[in-house]
Amino acid sequence: MTDVLINRRDLSFQLNEVLDTAALCNRERFSEHSPETFEAVIETADRIAREKFAPHNAEADRNEPRFVDGKVEMIPDVKVAFEALAEAGFIAGRHDYEVGGMQLPESIMTACAGFFMAANAGTAGYSFLTTAASNLVRVFGSPQQQEKYLSRMLTGQYSGTMALTEPHAGSSLSDIRTTATPTEAGHYLIRGAKIYISGGEQEITENIVHMVLAKIKGAPAGVKGISLFIVPKYRTDDEGNRLDRNGVALAGLIHKLGYRGTTSTALSFGDDAECHGYLVGEPHQGLRYMFHMMNEARLGVGFGAVAIGYRGYMHSLEYARDRLQGRKPSSKDPASPQVPIIEHTDVRRMLLAQKSYVEGGLALCLYGARLVDDAASHPDAAQRRDAQHLLDLMTPIIKAWPSEYGPKANDLAIQVYGGAGYTREYPVEQCWRDNRLNPIHEGTNGIQAMDLLGRKVWQAEGEGIQLLIKAIQRDLEAASDQRCQQWASSLSETVQQAGQVTQVLAGAMMKEGPDKALANASCYLHLLGHIIVAWMWLRQANVAAKKLADGCGAADEAFYLGKLQAAQYFFHWELPTVAQDIVLLRNQDDTCLQMRDGWF
Amino acid sequence: MTDVLINRRDLSFQLNEVLDTAALCNRERFSEHSPETFEAVIETADRIAREKFAPHNAEADRNEPRFVDGKVEMIPDVKVAFEALAEAGFIAGRHDYEVGGMQLPESIMTACAGFFMAANAGTAGYSFLTTAASNLVRVFGSPQQQEKYLSRMLTGQYSGTMALTEPHAGSSLSDIRTTATPTEAGHYLIRGAKIYISGGEQEITENIVHMVLAKIKGAPAGVKGISLFIVPKYRTDDEGNRLDRNGVALAGLIHKLGYRGTTSTALSFGDDAECHGYLVGEPHQGLRYMFHMMNEARLGVGFGAVAIGYRGYMHSLEYARDRLQGRKPSSKDPASPQVPIIEHTDVRRMLLAQKSYVEGGLALCLYGARLVDDAASHPDAAQRRDAQHLLDLMTPIIKAWPSEYGPKANDLAIQVYGGAGYTREYPVEQCWRDNRLNPIHEGTNGIQAMDLLGRKVWQAEGEGIQLLIKAIQRDLEAASDQRCQQWASSLSETVQQAGQVTQVLAGAMMKEGPDKALANASCYLHLLGHIIVAWMWLRQANVAAKKLADGCGAADEAFYLGKLQAAQYFFHWELPTVAQDIVLLRNQDDTCLQMRDGWF
Repeated sequence: MTDVLINRRDLSFQLNEVLDTAALCNRERFSEHSPETFEAVIETADRIAREKFAPHNAEADRNEPRFVDGKVEMIPDVKVAFEALAEAGFIAGRHDYEVGGMQLPESIMTACAGFFMAANAGTAGYSFLTTAASNLVRVFGSPQQQEKYLSRMLTGQYSGTMALTEPHAGSSLSDIRTTATPTEAGHYLIRGAKIYISGGEQEITENIVHMVLAKIKGAPAGVKGISLFIVPKYRTDDEGNRLDRNGVALAGLIHKLGYRGTTSTALSFGDDAECHGYLVGEPHQGLRYMFHMMNEARLGVGFGAVAIGYRGYMHSLEYARDRLQGRKPSSKDPASPQVPIIEHTDVRRMLLAQKSYVEGGLALCLYGARLVDDAASHPDAAQRRDAQHLLDLMTPIIKAWPSEYGPKANDLAIQVYGGAGYTREYPVEQCWRDNRLNPIHEGTNGIQAMDLLGRKVWQAEGEGIQLLIKAIQRDLEAASDQRCQQWASSLSETVQQAGQVTQVLAGAMMKEGPDKALANASCYLHLLGHIIVAWMWLRQANVAAKKLADGCGAADEAFYLGKLQAAQYFFHWELPTVAQDIVLLRNQDDTCLQMRDGWF
Repeated sequence: MTDVLINRRDLSFQLNEVLDTAALCNRERFSEHSPETFEAVIETADRIAREKFAPHNAEADRNEPRFVDGKVEMIPDVKVAFEALAEAGFIAGRHDYEVGGMQLPESIMTACAGFFMAANAGTAGYSFLTTAASNLVRVFGSPQQQEKYLSRMLTGQYSGTMALTEPHAGSSLSDIRTTATPTEAGHYLIRGAKIYISGGEQEITENIVHMVLAKIKGAPAGVKGISLFIVPKYRTDDEGNRLDRNGVALAGLIHKLGYRGTTSTALSFGDDAECHGYLVGEPHQGLRYMFHMMNEARLGVGFGAVAIGYRGYMHSLEYARDRLQGRKPSSKDPASPQVPIIEHTDVRRMLLAQKSYVEGGLALCLYGARLVDDAASHPDAAQRRDAQHLLDLMTPIIKAWPSEYGPKANDLAIQVYGGAGYTREYPVEQCWRDNRLNPIHEGTNGIQAMDLLGRKVWQAEGEGIQLLIKAIQRDLEAASDQRCQQWASSLSETVQQAGQVTQVLAGAMMKEGPDKALANASCYLHLLGHIIVAWMWLRQANVAAKKLADGCGAADEAFYLGKLQAAQYFFHWELPTVAQDIVLLRNQDDTCLQMRDGWF
């Protein structure tokens, strides 16, 4: 079994040759870093992921966490891996030196996260949830809350969760019923039930800091009445030392299809004992705060989907090179030796499709991470604002596109293995099961589509989409070799058509309201997703073509030719599939809108 | 949880209103049957499936068969269900009255099989393998072999398997190494290893009749040297009474992603004890014989994929009607009640897509079953021959199309459930796992594509494809209402383009040999598959439009309107996706062909 999680040559190409990540070292925030320190951090992540995460990936899946005597039991390897990751500084990596962080750019932290996700998404989940929750405390928490919780979360002494969903409301956050009643002591009493809370219970860390959405009595109805609370599993003294148990209890573990290493929990608040919650920031601003975390989480989900897709691709590539079976159609001589299945064109198709999805997805997620960096630390204020607009627009795509195409890649990985892929003796079926969560959590892809077409496209007077078109335009113009120019021309035409469709939808939205205009939002998400990933492939192809033209060694030549071939795959086999989206959107096809319950 | 396995109204529509299955009763073979007896058999299958198969579907998945003390242990419900199915006559159903059968047409037997598959594919597997093996003994076995094995297989006293695949050769049957050495006693000594043998060991039946491919020493190389043997688990006396154990042993159970109720085994022949095999028919004709069984099995795989897809659709439809969540985009008042999620257009899209896949797939498989009937029992010899040609052409499509789109339907079913769908508390994740086997077994879909474009299209001088075009033409002309005529016109255009592409490929095959022409065979499979399923939808729409025009009650009206809407979905959302296949095939796109191992 290959131990390659993500091809380091590819990652280096994307970070250094396509994105010029080294340039970040010129910014004040990263001035103590260098390309060498970046590379050392990546090497550390890759090593810990291979040594501490990958080895128990299958075992954690086979022995999922169990609820025994009110506690969650799981295999000990999870805690060991979590602590290795925390000890190496990966939870705190993004944060300021003064709180114990490494002031690493998002670009590098994202790359590192990829290795943990590819190695063992279930175990990696605990640290990513902690990172996300810690960011929330850092940005919106009071100095006292930061004092009590943040530093302990950054070292992995405490972990974090995000507790939004309730059984009766699912994605509809405006309908949550968990209540918060103020007390004279300053804390709130929390009562209610949450479901699908990942990492909601475990014995890995000393304490768990739940970030909980609840409504203060008398608050406005709907999303405008939601507040955010810190609800620790154990209360603490003012210094943050752990005291007695708080009234948040594990109501049950949820048994999942995959991603089994991460506990998924039903939690009850204030049922058997008082549950203390501590208001974060202002009352009724909870959803806005939570979306800070949610947007980060959405980027993380997309990248997790890429990473698991990538891992499956690495496995199936190795298998296809090793496994001998059959002959080419033109050489049926049964006395001739069998060939490695990678020699069969249809197997190459399945590998090339995977390559185009996962390397395209990696490019997309790293581009997104760079936007996070630029929005936070670009020296030019206008560039910071532009990066934020573009990031806002692209967030639903970075969440949804990889979570569609990562699982597709895993599906193809199984198919490359054939019968072996369907057995639990080989690793790809677990990739496929684990990855199936990604189109669902942190907002289903249907919700991402509504967010994109119902909100993001029109935000700031369409600034995001204008910036996107300009950014694509720059890379269209940079296409120098003949193949790249051809692809640039296909992409340019598709972008124009997408622009026209967007105009049509804007008109429809104004005239007829959102129901009809948003009816085929999923097509719009697919259209923009494919345009953006095609653009990512053009960017990679532009670089590869230039390097080939400049001349390079044999290994690099093969690598760059592979990039060009995968780009060709995307432009010939994938980008044209949006023609169908364009027709449906342009016609405002009402097939689904007009369907009636009684007709099913 | 709904207990609807397959919508009986839909099945009745397809069998009676679209296919006129009642007309079969006019044939001599079925002359003792009537529409009422057909319906009674279907009712029995539905009832046994609901009562004996469905209730332990999840339990059999959770408690997969185990290898204990040399035997396979499984939950007892499997045997109870198998025996109920056998006792009701479903293994023998197709066969002659004189061997204990019911002389039922394939059309009805296929419909019945659907209920068992939808209820519990793992348990149903044992009976379908037995049916397939029994057909092989019936057609090619000697009278003595029929005497010994057939009658016992038809009552379910003995079961059957098909043992083709070997560890080092997988799909490449020309490379099998299992040997058969003749003895003076008349039997052969079998030595070798087989893998992925479904039902290869169990304690449900008194004996297991393995249909084994092996090479007689000195046989020609490749597929022309393969012979077929009966290898029973227990030897029998001349009357077929069970004697001592034969030297076929369980080397191990294979642990699968899904379909867990059916044991998947590694078997060793002649390792620890003599393994007797009995030659079926002539030496070196084994592959031809096996393909008799294999073609039936391929139709069965396609239909299994439809059935599991259908079951997931029924589940998600019920869930979408019951589950309250959120509001329409135009009514954001948080004080208004939440709506059933079926009211969200994107959920309707996912249900409508499922409907179009599974009802389209059902139409496809029942059409195929009718071709089996026509090829066997049509009174007119020319019609029998035509039906066989068309069936030969369509077999890879009936295997592959549903096994792509059945799992897609299950994927959408999970997505309709959202987070709940990802848990093992709800039934759709098992559907998805079970169904994932279907693109792999009985020849991967890649192999189906090669079979279609490399062989079936050109067979009998292209007779199959000519017949297909004629058959489609008849239904294009029958389109009477305006919508149907529009769809007929899209389909007609697509058929023409497919015809041109086929000419291009024929030329390429002649000029440049098969490697390039077959490079994109998967696109051709998708193209023809979508054309044929669109045709199936046009046939259904033609009937529905006519019934609506003639006038009908409210319930029927809703049903027919649903058929038209699903047809519209397929014509607007699905059929146009073949544009991409046509371009790639017409250009003989060589992206995958030219990709090199070293470039990945």
